[in-house]
Amino acid sequence: MADSNALEGLTQALRKLPGVGAKSAARMAFHLLQHDRPAALQIARALEHAVSSIQHCSLCNTLTEMDVCSTCANPQRDRSKLCVVETPADQAALERTLAYKGLYFVLMGKLSPLDGIGPNDIGLQKLFDRVVPKDGSGRPLPPESREVQEVILATNFTAEGEATAHVIAQALKSRGAQVTRLARGVPVGSELEYVDLGTIAHALVDRR
Amino acid sequence: MADSNALEGLTQALRKLPGVGAKSAARMAFHLLQHDRPAALQIARALEHAVSSIQHCSLCNTLTEMDVCSTCANPQRDRSKLCVVETPADQAALERTLAYKGLYFVLMGKLSPLDGIGPNDIGLQKLFDRVVPKDGSGRPLPPESREVQEVILATNFTAEGEATAHVIAQALKSRGAQVTRLARGVPVGSELEYVDLGTIAHALVDRR
Repeated sequence: MADSNALEGLTQALRKLPGVGAKSAARMAFHLLQHDRPAALQIARALEHAVSSIQHCSLCNTLTEMDVCSTCANPQRDRSKLCVVETPADQAALERTLAYKGLYFVLMGKLSPLDGIGPNDIGLQKLFDRVVPKDGSGRPLPPESREVQEVILATNFTAEGEATAHVIAQALKSRGAQVTRLARGVPVGSELEYVDLGTIAHALVDRR
Repeated sequence: MADSNALEGLTQALRKLPGVGAKSAARMAFHLLQHDRPAALQIARALEHAVSSIQHCSLCNTLTEMDVCSTCANPQRDRSKLCVVETPADQAALERTLAYKGLYFVLMGKLSPLDGIGPNDIGLQKLFDRVVPKDGSGRPLPPESREVQEVILATNFTAEGEATAHVIAQALKSRGAQVTRLARGVPVGSELEYVDLGTIAHALVDRR
């Protein structure tokens, strides 16, 4: 592009950002170098700080700077409910509703066989061990003495999200856990005329 | 979003990239931390290296790691022609045509009074000094003894680009320089039926 290996290297590096192609990367590089060098250094420092300090919560798997995230460490949370979400962004959406006071388990992904992402890649074993802990002799605890009494599946309502929910539900139900799924139905504020048929059909089946 | 000041800081920093809003920045941050930490460090190092090593070419004003960029330093370039472009990306587009062998002057911007960008902000004085150098006693050299014999204006054909070209042309012509502008006309490969009226009108006026 221009007369500089450093600029070429920066453009190549910025292309690793999701959703950024060659033209966008070049535009970002020019903008930062021409108009906002302090922002370039700020981004560099933020990246290094985040990579060095952010890890996964040892309980719920979300991104955190501590060993256990503030949600898991909060004693006022209802520890008998565990809500399974795909990403921290989904967790944040649920938190904004103020309608859930239990704990979370963040998969950090979803089953996606076409992309080669199987149960081991999204930490399902960690979830199973959390919901169905083993006693001293390696046997699963009976349901009544487990801490988690209900697992609420809140993966996305996409093909992969539904498949992920199905696999988790099968595995946990076979181990005697109570598993529920977020309700499917007509979105609040919408008119039936404009809601897609699949959603109306589900809302009809799941009527209450 | 999640349980981390470092993550929040990274998301805020990424929002400084042009065209990146809150949702995109959060998506980028999650992607880097979850799936591609080496890329995060690569971007950080590329940013720091670029900021510390890239400066403006002392002749043509483009971004370069050297005092004089490789185009300006190339002895096979025709030094009597100077092509004025807005950005290094525009310069790269012209270079790809292989149709121009002269030198460049990169404005690194365009006149944009609405954004408060005037002649001093895009280095017009540097351009004038380059095209119309002064002799030992501070008087402008006469046209026949100047190195640059023709200035080709290749700013964009937008409102701001045309205004910039107009201002430069006025100033340089009043100093006795020969100024030309890239031809406006019908793009190669297009059918007249689908070309906008302004372009056809210009092509008609500029017919040859």
